[in-house]
Amino acid sequence: MLLEALYHVPRDKWAYAYDNSTIHLRIRTKRDDLEQVIAMTGDKYNWAGTYQEYPMEKAAHDRMFDYWEVDVRPRYKRLSYAFKLVAGTETIYMLDSGLQHDPPSPPGECFEYSYIHEIDVFKVPEWAKEAVFYQIMPERFANGNPDNDSKPVEKWGSPPKFDNFFGGDLQGVLDHLNHLVDLGINAIYFTPLFTSPSYHKYDTTDYRQVDPHFGDNALLKKVAVACHERGIRVVLDAVFNHCGEQFPPFQDVLKHGQNSKYAGWFHINEFPVKIKDGVPTYDTFGFFGNMPKFNTANPEVKEYLLGVAEYWIREIKLDGWRLDVANEIDHHFWRDFRNVVKRVNPEAYIIGEVWSDSLNWLLGDQFDSVMNYPFADKVLEFFCGGMDGYNFSNEMGSLVMRYPQQTNEVIFNMLCTHDTPRLLTRVGGDKRKLKLCVVFLFTYIGTPCIFYGDEIGLTGNTDPDCRKCMEWDPLKQDRELLDFYKMMIALRKKHVVLRQGRFRFLQAKSGNPCIIYERLDQSMHFTVWMNNTDKACVLSHPIQTSDWQDALTGERVAPDSGTMNISLDPYGFRILYRHIK
Amino acid sequence: MLLEALYHVPRDKWAYAYDNSTIHLRIRTKRDDLEQVIAMTGDKYNWAGTYQEYPMEKAAHDRMFDYWEVDVRPRYKRLSYAFKLVAGTETIYMLDSGLQHDPPSPPGECFEYSYIHEIDVFKVPEWAKEAVFYQIMPERFANGNPDNDSKPVEKWGSPPKFDNFFGGDLQGVLDHLNHLVDLGINAIYFTPLFTSPSYHKYDTTDYRQVDPHFGDNALLKKVAVACHERGIRVVLDAVFNHCGEQFPPFQDVLKHGQNSKYAGWFHINEFPVKIKDGVPTYDTFGFFGNMPKFNTANPEVKEYLLGVAEYWIREIKLDGWRLDVANEIDHHFWRDFRNVVKRVNPEAYIIGEVWSDSLNWLLGDQFDSVMNYPFADKVLEFFCGGMDGYNFSNEMGSLVMRYPQQTNEVIFNMLCTHDTPRLLTRVGGDKRKLKLCVVFLFTYIGTPCIFYGDEIGLTGNTDPDCRKCMEWDPLKQDRELLDFYKMMIALRKKHVVLRQGRFRFLQAKSGNPCIIYERLDQSMHFTVWMNNTDKACVLSHPIQTSDWQDALTGERVAPDSGTMNISLDPYGFRILYRHIK
Repeated sequence: MLLEALYHVPRDKWAYAYDNSTIHLRIRTKRDDLEQVIAMTGDKYNWAGTYQEYPMEKAAHDRMFDYWEVDVRPRYKRLSYAFKLVAGTETIYMLDSGLQHDPPSPPGECFEYSYIHEIDVFKVPEWAKEAVFYQIMPERFANGNPDNDSKPVEKWGSPPKFDNFFGGDLQGVLDHLNHLVDLGINAIYFTPLFTSPSYHKYDTTDYRQVDPHFGDNALLKKVAVACHERGIRVVLDAVFNHCGEQFPPFQDVLKHGQNSKYAGWFHINEFPVKIKDGVPTYDTFGFFGNMPKFNTANPEVKEYLLGVAEYWIREIKLDGWRLDVANEIDHHFWRDFRNVVKRVNPEAYIIGEVWSDSLNWLLGDQFDSVMNYPFADKVLEFFCGGMDGYNFSNEMGSLVMRYPQQTNEVIFNMLCTHDTPRLLTRVGGDKRKLKLCVVFLFTYIGTPCIFYGDEIGLTGNTDPDCRKCMEWDPLKQDRELLDFYKMMIALRKKHVVLRQGRFRFLQAKSGNPCIIYERLDQSMHFTVWMNNTDKACVLSHPIQTSDWQDALTGERVAPDSGTMNISLDPYGFRILYRHIK
Repeated sequence: MLLEALYHVPRDKWAYAYDNSTIHLRIRTKRDDLEQVIAMTGDKYNWAGTYQEYPMEKAAHDRMFDYWEVDVRPRYKRLSYAFKLVAGTETIYMLDSGLQHDPPSPPGECFEYSYIHEIDVFKVPEWAKEAVFYQIMPERFANGNPDNDSKPVEKWGSPPKFDNFFGGDLQGVLDHLNHLVDLGINAIYFTPLFTSPSYHKYDTTDYRQVDPHFGDNALLKKVAVACHERGIRVVLDAVFNHCGEQFPPFQDVLKHGQNSKYAGWFHINEFPVKIKDGVPTYDTFGFFGNMPKFNTANPEVKEYLLGVAEYWIREIKLDGWRLDVANEIDHHFWRDFRNVVKRVNPEAYIIGEVWSDSLNWLLGDQFDSVMNYPFADKVLEFFCGGMDGYNFSNEMGSLVMRYPQQTNEVIFNMLCTHDTPRLLTRVGGDKRKLKLCVVFLFTYIGTPCIFYGDEIGLTGNTDPDCRKCMEWDPLKQDRELLDFYKMMIALRKKHVVLRQGRFRFLQAKSGNPCIIYERLDQSMHFTVWMNNTDKACVLSHPIQTSDWQDALTGERVAPDSGTMNISLDPYGFRILYRHIK
């Protein structure tokens, strides 16, 4: 047994309450090193009367480690526990006090999950588990009202630059809601809508006013009502890390310096407030002088921004907030944010923009979810040919073990956004690869999101190229691709197992980029077969039951002498399922 | 390089702000496996312009691992980082995205400490770093006023039982303050003082009244004033997990059942409220029906208890709270508790009673410190002959790496309490071993605490035996021991290096229970030599400088040809020091 590989701590994703009566325990061991892991559990005040052993299961693995998991339901909300680790004839016990060969004498020196408090249990909104998101950058989606265009605007569809305008607005969204309904999505994430001088509106001037080039507050309300009538949830972008340079309190600081009553609203390192040797004398987003960073620890700032958060939830029955540059704001702020938001709408969905490990914000007291950029990176690397199945399964295992299950169920999975190249561009324009990515997205754990236009074949490299205008001319849209998206969205929405069933790789081999994986629950079983190569192939896997059908064509498919053989075109896939009696 | 042994996560004790401009990074590697670890750091928005490499140092080790540490001061409060790990000709890079052999292209895929927010920085009270605590159980310390005794009381000094009374009170404390001043302690931790039917008072009836058998609120104020006049801080015991059965709101629930307006104050699983088949129908401390657990998520309960916390700070200028059964109360409560307490007294010292890994509460938002029972266990095991120096150094290394440095500086180290056997009893009555324990306590990292009576030789097995009456007859006190305690306390108070200097084992060998260790800062260097065996011995260690003296006798001590040879009696010790020019 490789003892140095063992890891468990009695907190965060390793030991957490999943609901008011269930504690999830996880432990890490060297890959393929152990045969058995048993959680020894009990109540420390009555160990003998409550002692119970729980065999643990391998929930995931990555290149070096197996991750074992078990759901424990303590009788009196208190849990003391140790692990019994078995490899061949060797048995090791792992306790809070360390590793030992001798059987322990619990509850002394055990790990503890001291008491399940409902208030501390991490709850995520149920609807987010069912959601298929669509991300809209309003300035580039549709121009429904040329009268409110900023002057000048470029011709719709001409190349985007860092600072040009095309006239997209909320009326455009309203006009094209049917497209979204047809597509089948049931949630929209809007990049910022509030008044700001830029087209992207990440430099806010007025947090309580829809930008006049987009419409007005009444129109946003109308959009929200129309969405809700169609079963579409609405999430807005909260740009609370920084404001725009034109934000009146910052203007006041520029004018009055340290005498401004807003001087404490920002992080001013030196007066006068200016750009000095290329670096602002105040903290900013990045080093952008036009995006002064808020001092979110200042009670006035906090009151102001939390007021904004609450205002829009009440005003348009907002379903959630996506939090821009969320990792650079203090944790006290986010805890209070969660309290305010969930008090007004307990089912609000809170998604942080954090690109790296985000567990700090995903312990139940801050966010529900984060934008899963590492997911996008690994999926694209795999389907672009940079990885074999073995490594891909390791990377996915590593990601799923980053967070507690609550977050995994609603983690915001996307393949591209306004901050990355377009999906079709990232796969080198190969629609077959794009489809494999999309099949994976819609059959994987988490809440999928499409970036506007991906569904009709929009291309684009990094910002600003990825922010092209939506193509509304049916003749210029890739209608075949659109149908494919509709089909995949419909499939995911139809089958709860694709949203909440257990995920497992069935085949993910070294040196082989083809994979087979399954989603499974008590009533349905899906298997997905993917030929991630440029040659036709047959994928085979032992399958006992013969009652399978193709999820897209309905064709019946049966194994041959206990082996399912699936012929696949280059970059082809097949999705099979069966009902479990 | 054993890759499975590597561990780092960008949070909690592995990456944290030590102050407003310093981030501590730690990484774990297999013991003695690596030659060099370098932190590659920069600001992600200007990597090239801010890139800096920090060589890391081995800060501690345990049986299997080395722990490397470095202080990083990012120029713009934001830190992206990766680790470069070197073992012989092998170089590995560790990033947020995993391990790789190729040099990374930062800031992509780096770990992040996104931004140092002052409000999130974990601050502990400065005075606690200087404190030497004395724990008093008032009912057993001194009976200063027989008129307020509960009836009946036992004869002072007769054997304690689970429920007998001896008449100790606050007047007794006041009468004996000189003993404490002579001893040299500068802080008292009182077990509970508020009204309660028991002698130990962990079943509170009235949180705002001193128990009449102890005195009254005015007397407590007088004690606090007297202590403060003598430079002695006062910490009280906050029993907020549960109340006593006689607490009026619980009595109301017993009387009115679910119609009681206090029904929500507790965790009632079933009405009527009673003991059913030996188990209360309401949550309790342990399974004790007379200690009903508070529902600390209930806003009324929270307001009530936080009001109590604030009341005593204002009323007697309280210096801190020790939190009973702290781990079984919800985290929301403790966050609010910290806010309330630190608002009224920013230098209040908050110590949780948590016996196992407590990092969950030691991230800056809840406690400053915890009662360090694992420290007591390991120190006693070592000095009772259950461990060699090698294992002892491993255990101490493991404990110090449990928590961020802030907590290590003020962790509440004790060798026994009212909940364990007495120190002298635990070492089998061998005063020589006791002294080794005490020398270690007073020359180690953290805030030491003595349990009343240990200093004059009180003995006692587990509760109730460890709660004997204090011995005030000088003829029955161990005066030699008392002088020894005074000397050790004075030594610690005199030398800041013993409180805040770097700790390192110089000798801690396998199969050998003798140890040598040092404390070091920029102006002082201490070495401590311990013969933890029953045979006389000579401990030798390479020492270059010759300007050492014995810290207790003043005798000058010099090495012989670069080796210091220290002769020690069985269970003897010697403390040497020198000034650094």
